[in-house]
Amino acid sequence: MTAPANPAPAYLAVDWGTSSLRVWVLSHAGDVLAERRSAEGMDTLHQDGFEAVLRRHLAALGPIVEALPRPLPIVLCGMVGARQGWREAPYVDVPTRLDAVVDRATVVSVEGIDARILPGLARRNPERPDVMRGEETQLLGLLLDHPDATGLVAMPGTHAKWVRLRGGTVTGFTTAMTGELFALLSRHSILRHSIGDAEPTSDPDSPAFREGLTRALADPGMIGAKLFAVRAGGLLFGTGPEASADLLSGLLIGAEVGAALIGLDGNEPVILVATGKLARLYSAAVEAGGRTVRLVDADVAVRKGLLHAARRFWPPPA
Amino acid sequence: MTAPANPAPAYLAVDWGTSSLRVWVLSHAGDVLAERRSAEGMDTLHQDGFEAVLRRHLAALGPIVEALPRPLPIVLCGMVGARQGWREAPYVDVPTRLDAVVDRATVVSVEGIDARILPGLARRNPERPDVMRGEETQLLGLLLDHPDATGLVAMPGTHAKWVRLRGGTVTGFTTAMTGELFALLSRHSILRHSIGDAEPTSDPDSPAFREGLTRALADPGMIGAKLFAVRAGGLLFGTGPEASADLLSGLLIGAEVGAALIGLDGNEPVILVATGKLARLYSAAVEAGGRTVRLVDADVAVRKGLLHAARRFWPPPA
Repeated sequence: MTAPANPAPAYLAVDWGTSSLRVWVLSHAGDVLAERRSAEGMDTLHQDGFEAVLRRHLAALGPIVEALPRPLPIVLCGMVGARQGWREAPYVDVPTRLDAVVDRATVVSVEGIDARILPGLARRNPERPDVMRGEETQLLGLLLDHPDATGLVAMPGTHAKWVRLRGGTVTGFTTAMTGELFALLSRHSILRHSIGDAEPTSDPDSPAFREGLTRALADPGMIGAKLFAVRAGGLLFGTGPEASADLLSGLLIGAEVGAALIGLDGNEPVILVATGKLARLYSAAVEAGGRTVRLVDADVAVRKGLLHAARRFWPPPA
Repeated sequence: MTAPANPAPAYLAVDWGTSSLRVWVLSHAGDVLAERRSAEGMDTLHQDGFEAVLRRHLAALGPIVEALPRPLPIVLCGMVGARQGWREAPYVDVPTRLDAVVDRATVVSVEGIDARILPGLARRNPERPDVMRGEETQLLGLLLDHPDATGLVAMPGTHAKWVRLRGGTVTGFTTAMTGELFALLSRHSILRHSIGDAEPTSDPDSPAFREGLTRALADPGMIGAKLFAVRAGGLLFGTGPEASADLLSGLLIGAEVGAALIGLDGNEPVILVATGKLARLYSAAVEAGGRTVRLVDADVAVRKGLLHAARRFWPPPA
């Protein structure tokens, strides 16, 4: 007559980026027992503010935190490990196996807390330097389900990452500033006169979005020259604000995807790690570029990656 | 025993753009007899403010204005003819002979003033719409010295224009938002963390500028993916603010020039209409792209274009 046992809380997992913070209480098996989200990203914090913010969220989680082991096992990823973060977790250089980010975590021991910050990855190539923080943990989660994943991984966002994986090893990656360019161009450039306060529809079937994709995929090299067409289209053809926003979105995403697909082998699919509207828009763009998409949920992937690391730091009872 | 006659004032010529205003008093032969510059561009004005600003500058020019014919013959170009300008001068569609901008000027007759606003050009192609205002007058000036000019004309600026000329006819043109992108990216994107308050050196021999040119010219299509390297280079290699600014400048100008030179015929030179630091930087970029440059001073060209129009509107005594 016992109810199915509630899984016991085992770990705290934290994805702490530039603009947001998410905290999960996980069981050993990865069940999400509690969650908190906040906009207290690194951009809003001084270096000595991280611990206080973390403790406030722990307090807000209430009694479930009392049921966790002591000291509290907390695994973190993202900008929290940047030089301006809570504690620097120095980059691991690529090429590297993803397990290295677990091996080289930075330990933060403070009153009642055993925190481990996973490092980001760096490509220390003087001609094409690049860095990531947070996406490596999504990739770690991706590998749990696909341990031999090989291919090109698209991770859209403010600073989109395109990652080359070969059997658990990251061989290289590139950042495209697409999300940030969209925000800057739509709100602060001359294109704001055509877009106004409109948001893109984020509908992958929007004609203006498709038009932008088509133009940019046909010739990703000329993006600088295509952007102004958003303004000129408003002036000459009366293109409305929402269609102008969709066109800009299509142009930027199409140029990013088009450039990334150049030189891709044979019929290799693209592994897309994304959620919500970015998943829809990038799926449409990759398919318009003639490739199939394997979609992986980004939120699930980062939790799986954090769980994987936590189980290595604090193995569950056998 | 007479001194050489001072040429008589004949015309007022005005280049009135988005961010600045320049007024010249010209003789029939084009001698500059007086000049005023101001930051009262269209962006700072309401539609009903243009006339007042113009009259204030005429008053400030003093007695020389008294010596001009009545009503005052004023020829204008630039955003002053936009829909939000003083009076709209509807675009002339390309392809068009440049003389058409003189034939189709908009007349503004107000108390004591006979003003003629030269229209801009439009490319009314639904897939690649584009517009210019002001550059058509520089091109008109260019043609006075080179009436059969044929080739590719580069006109750098906030919104750079690349114009295809064939014997006095504009067959097409494209806008690249390079100057605006530089301002947005260096001041408002994540790259600001690497650039700070630094200005680019504008030295075409700066190693970081050359490095940016080289990277971008090699592969203008991947510009979205190259920009973030400015940030990563600061993080991984300690690239300083000024070098980061120069690198960004080189990447953006290199991508623009590289894309524009694709498909250019044989050894065709590029006619560069520019002044000052833009003339130096774009000369370096075009030469790094393997082309020779014929430099035309942009300030001289716009005055020559305005003069040409003025002499058509109000022919000098024979």
